[in-house]
Amino acid sequence: MNNLSFEQKQQWVNEQLIHKAEQLNLPKPLREAVFYSINSGGKRLRPVLMVAAYGTFSNDYERIVDMVVALEMVHTYSLIHDDLPAMDDDDLRRGQPTIHRQFDEATAILVGDGLLTYAFQIISTSSKLEAEEKVYSISELSKASGFEGMIAGQYMDLKGEGEDLTVEQLSRIHRRKTGELIRTAVKVGAYLGGATPPQIESLDEYASHLGLIFQVQDDILDVTGDEDEIGKPVGSDASLDKSTYPRLLGLKGAINKRDEYMALANQALKDAHVENSQLKDFIRLFGNRSH
Amino acid sequence: MNNLSFEQKQQWVNEQLIHKAEQLNLPKPLREAVFYSINSGGKRLRPVLMVAAYGTFSNDYERIVDMVVALEMVHTYSLIHDDLPAMDDDDLRRGQPTIHRQFDEATAILVGDGLLTYAFQIISTSSKLEAEEKVYSISELSKASGFEGMIAGQYMDLKGEGEDLTVEQLSRIHRRKTGELIRTAVKVGAYLGGATPPQIESLDEYASHLGLIFQVQDDILDVTGDEDEIGKPVGSDASLDKSTYPRLLGLKGAINKRDEYMALANQALKDAHVENSQLKDFIRLFGNRSH
Repeated sequence: MNNLSFEQKQQWVNEQLIHKAEQLNLPKPLREAVFYSINSGGKRLRPVLMVAAYGTFSNDYERIVDMVVALEMVHTYSLIHDDLPAMDDDDLRRGQPTIHRQFDEATAILVGDGLLTYAFQIISTSSKLEAEEKVYSISELSKASGFEGMIAGQYMDLKGEGEDLTVEQLSRIHRRKTGELIRTAVKVGAYLGGATPPQIESLDEYASHLGLIFQVQDDILDVTGDEDEIGKPVGSDASLDKSTYPRLLGLKGAINKRDEYMALANQALKDAHVENSQLKDFIRLFGNRSH
Repeated sequence: MNNLSFEQKQQWVNEQLIHKAEQLNLPKPLREAVFYSINSGGKRLRPVLMVAAYGTFSNDYERIVDMVVALEMVHTYSLIHDDLPAMDDDDLRRGQPTIHRQFDEATAILVGDGLLTYAFQIISTSSKLEAEEKVYSISELSKASGFEGMIAGQYMDLKGEGEDLTVEQLSRIHRRKTGELIRTAVKVGAYLGGATPPQIESLDEYASHLGLIFQVQDDILDVTGDEDEIGKPVGSDASLDKSTYPRLLGLKGAINKRDEYMALANQALKDAHVENSQLKDFIRLFGNRSH
């Protein structure tokens, strides 16, 4: 697995997701909606990141399959619910109709609820993990995606539209909305791989910067990106009157901010003594991506 | 606890729910919505049933607190999402505005998502249960409330409106929509209390009948109930063109069906050799309730 390219790892994640969804016995239209949601061409950044964190310490990739699938299911659920009319009201996601547009709102709510719940079912019934490992994984995943993590982040993001935020407030929202799940990918991956507690701590620091790199670059792309590549209209955040890094710091200031986080992430990797890990690639991947 | 009345146990459950919600650090309006949702006067049937199943085998009630709270949070989340405009579109629940009416739809979706996730966080971080017990509890709870349980039940219930169902199809929907979580209350309660595997099996049978008793009586009350007591207009299911037991079997047939399930539940309790348990009271409680 360590020799696989990013695209090959994406492919592996896709296969595992489909395999788990195939095990569900569901009414036909609900089943179709589940497959639609997991076949939506996601970049699989979080699961591939988890694989890289795990692979830094262990080569026994079969052990982490269930956790990887669970992580991506939680991410998928969050996108489905965020896209709902009462939330961000998005008709398209990666150029395809969102679930509530392709099917209906009730189906979108239920598929989201189901994927979230299935994630915990998959981890708790995994034949590959010890009870202690399952408990650790579930507690980290539920905290990151729960009230004080992703939920509060999405709530503050929604309610903060049109308000003037400081850079600090903006970072706080993003840390919760997207950062916590990225940290979970690294932290649980490293833990299950067998990292030492100080290594986990440094890697958590790394992941925390990675989350902010991701978000700053997202905001930069909203200004400079190619519409076809990013899959949504350029300037759509600005038109929503959303606080973004370029808006608060200027485009040059935002780029400097991103580079600053990239340097901090590199330093944290050095502190974890895993400099040759594939985790290093993710700093460039998140910081230089064009979509 | 065994000496407490049903009302005193309800009170105990309420206190534990509030205690757990108080531990959350949330933006103020989101926090208000969480407290509104758990202070909504629910009957706490599932958690009190779990306490009764547990208490049949153990008196150390502190051990089961976290699981009891998690169970009721999952039930509460399911009501919040079921009430949404895209689902059952209910403005009132127990005579009070539903969350999306009192706050807004986005808040209702997020509070539901948050309660579901918090349930798994509470169990996985419990200081009172062993890792193996947590894993068992999480797997049972996630299966019951997941795609093949509650979610499929709600989906089939929603999409089945206006369709003519057989009694068998109707039972199948209710087994999933409400039955699975009632079974979890009994099964996990008995397991954590220390029941033997054959006892758990018989009690699961008991709980399965209990779920159907609950649903048949619900449908009977929709025909014969007192509007103030049941908290929704009499005949509201019939007006939605929903299949109900009285509609399929006649009122007398539905009452016979309920009594049949009550006899089966009593027999299952005998098989489990726990006839003197408080679980016996639940058969009458579910079968004779007036709201």
